[in-house]
Amino acid sequence: MSSIFTKIINGEIPSYKVAEDENFFAFLDINPNAKGHTLVVPKKEVNKLFDLDEATYNGLMSFSRKVALALEKAVPCKRIGVSVIGLEVPHVHVHLIPLHSMQNIDFKHKVSLTKEEFEETAKSIAENIQ
Amino acid sequence: MSSIFTKIINGEIPSYKVAEDENFFAFLDINPNAKGHTLVVPKKEVNKLFDLDEATYNGLMSFSRKVALALEKAVPCKRIGVSVIGLEVPHVHVHLIPLHSMQNIDFKHKVSLTKEEFEETAKSIAENIQ
Repeated sequence: MSSIFTKIINGEIPSYKVAEDENFFAFLDINPNAKGHTLVVPKKEVNKLFDLDEATYNGLMSFSRKVALALEKAVPCKRIGVSVIGLEVPHVHVHLIPLHSMQNIDFKHKVSLTKEEFEETAKSIAENIQ
Repeated sequence: MSSIFTKIINGEIPSYKVAEDENFFAFLDINPNAKGHTLVVPKKEVNKLFDLDEATYNGLMSFSRKVALALEKAVPCKRIGVSVIGLEVPHVHVHLIPLHSMQNIDFKHKVSLTKEEFEETAKSIAENIQ
């Protein structure tokens, strides 16, 4: 069965898309730690980050950098934090999180955004991708 | 003034070293979230991950992968988690954390290790670097 992220990539589940290329897909986390919290995933469905082949791993990190640089421009914050955990969804995903304080890296702390805020944030990040 | 990590890299402050090359240095976090918690730092002293030039960023991620693959062999765990925050020490550092549960990604949750356990863990990771 496809992972929830594969369903998002395929458009079977809607998402606030931020960026996409042949191998990677970035979209807003629907249950964000902070406004602008983005997930970057390889289209290849692999469970663990360090099980990715070297080229896919390097590509994922490079694509995440591109998204993070845009995110930094779109969402005012102290810096962009990175987290890869993956104990819940068995499909590699890089969390990019605008940090204001240590609280934003705590996955038990969540913020609520309206549909309009999600749409506007995704658009603004997408426009800053270089 | 040099950061605490530059002092560690220069040997002015002792550390449990895991790996080193021309541009990067990896050592055990002295206040670990889990046994085997490792920090990977660029020798170049830059505050924020996404302020690193592209080559250094790519090199850091590639070096971190090499260390993570060794860590995975040395320390039994479900997977290696990655975290980059940096709100405390203004010198880029990638946390590589052996995960057993979500608790290990919580920086408020720490474990105590003896000097012997640190030495043995560092040695075992170093021996698995390829």
